[in-house]
Amino acid sequence: MALYEKITIIGLGLIGSSMARGIKEKNLCKTLVGFDANEDIHEVINQLKLVDRLDKKLSDSVKDADLVILATPVGAYSSLGEIIGPHLKKGTTLSDVGSIKNAVFKMLNPYIPKNVHLIPGHPVAGTEQSGPKAGFSSLFHDRWAILTPADDADQSAVDQLTKFWQALGSNVEIMDPAHHDKVLAITSHVPHLIAYNIVGTARDLEEVTKSEVIKFSAGGFRDFTRIAASDPTMWRDVFLHNKDAVLEMLGRFNEDLTALQRAIRWDDGDALYEIFEKTRRIRKQIIDAGQEQDVADFGRHHED
Amino acid sequence: MALYEKITIIGLGLIGSSMARGIKEKNLCKTLVGFDANEDIHEVINQLKLVDRLDKKLSDSVKDADLVILATPVGAYSSLGEIIGPHLKKGTTLSDVGSIKNAVFKMLNPYIPKNVHLIPGHPVAGTEQSGPKAGFSSLFHDRWAILTPADDADQSAVDQLTKFWQALGSNVEIMDPAHHDKVLAITSHVPHLIAYNIVGTARDLEEVTKSEVIKFSAGGFRDFTRIAASDPTMWRDVFLHNKDAVLEMLGRFNEDLTALQRAIRWDDGDALYEIFEKTRRIRKQIIDAGQEQDVADFGRHHED
Repeated sequence: MALYEKITIIGLGLIGSSMARGIKEKNLCKTLVGFDANEDIHEVINQLKLVDRLDKKLSDSVKDADLVILATPVGAYSSLGEIIGPHLKKGTTLSDVGSIKNAVFKMLNPYIPKNVHLIPGHPVAGTEQSGPKAGFSSLFHDRWAILTPADDADQSAVDQLTKFWQALGSNVEIMDPAHHDKVLAITSHVPHLIAYNIVGTARDLEEVTKSEVIKFSAGGFRDFTRIAASDPTMWRDVFLHNKDAVLEMLGRFNEDLTALQRAIRWDDGDALYEIFEKTRRIRKQIIDAGQEQDVADFGRHHED
Repeated sequence: MALYEKITIIGLGLIGSSMARGIKEKNLCKTLVGFDANEDIHEVINQLKLVDRLDKKLSDSVKDADLVILATPVGAYSSLGEIIGPHLKKGTTLSDVGSIKNAVFKMLNPYIPKNVHLIPGHPVAGTEQSGPKAGFSSLFHDRWAILTPADDADQSAVDQLTKFWQALGSNVEIMDPAHHDKVLAITSHVPHLIAYNIVGTARDLEEVTKSEVIKFSAGGFRDFTRIAASDPTMWRDVFLHNKDAVLEMLGRFNEDLTALQRAIRWDDGDALYEIFEKTRRIRKQIIDAGQEQDVADFGRHHED
């Protein structure tokens, strides 16, 4: 069922191309237009028939669109906004899929006409892979899409965007943008930072060779390498645009880690046990909430 | 093919019961004896027919055994050694599966007769689940088993134990015990500590509710919950017995994390990008080495 006449997706990487596939599969618009600044991937986008029309010019791509989705690294939003702002139709909904939300208003408001509905969004879904080939339409199924409209947002535009994400298979949560940035700092940004960090630490050791790190990674290390394989540009931009919340959560993480470190140094087994014993329950709750699979070892292949 | 006449496994949790299954499947001994101090699980052990005989008395279980494997948390080794020491047969191989190796000699040497071959071992394999029901015979397939014999170890006993682990499906690496403890500190112990820590930090937040942490865990957090669901007693003992190497690796991790934190605070996008870009390759190398599967998102289920 068409929820919009014309949708434009700017950026056809993992998320943009997954949305394009879902939109096509569910016929959520009559015309789907795409734009991607990286011309090297245009052939793949066309081969995969991800969009009805892949425009060469950004300003052309958004003309007459009823919904425009930014699906690029968030660091590009200001320059995108400056280019597309004058070409957006009155009453259009402008949204995005970025992992930070408060800064979106600051970056786009200067360029976006008052008669355009700016409703930032964030589907909490993804894989460690990048690019149009990595996308798939079920990426958003049973995941949460967070919308962070301003207080004075047009309710019917918010409702329509909510239906859109539900049609892609998501649950939708409306949230204050600043609160979003705190929630995601602990559930996503700091975990990525720590994963990048430990993989970096391991790589730089002199006493332990890289081949040893690789051979014995099944001891736990390999679990961190998945999110540490995520797109570096996207993640650079996340940290630069969610500085306050990330630094706050990182401060708490560091305090807690210092306490654990001290417990190890002082042979305080009871303190260690108490912490290790509580964390098990959270995984069970995540599985119960349908946000994780209930098989051991992430269901890694264990048979011959 | 029977590699030993009689094998005794002390502790029939995830690792011990997986070994028992593999031993039975490959007929690696004529008699397989088990002991587990937790009588609550005896019924399950017997129902699953994991061993030929489940002894009630620890000292009985090791009598005439040609191979004795300790598969309990490492904190129990000293008291186990004191009890079994006088009952071990001359020429028996005593090994274990603990995640730390240097301390094993210190804990067991006082109690073990000179004519027993103490050859500590560590299969770098596991899941986040515990207990005899969680085990499976293919757990060790294509994983590495590390043996850390003393310099004066009996070579034929080492060779026989090597064959044993190879028969269970593992690759075998001979390593110096102190070096093992450093390698595993970075590939396993510190990753577990960090995972436990971030799950703990998230649980204790006031501004972000626990239900938000659970709902939006697909942003990356849930990857950490798997190893943070590991057995708390086992992990308490690992940290207490590998203090020096863990504190050293943790110190390096902290230095690197401080550098990342500083880069975020000072908006140094180039420094962030440089680190994030390098870590991707390590995952690919782990996959190429057969220590991780090559599907996105750990192969989590993405279809309806």
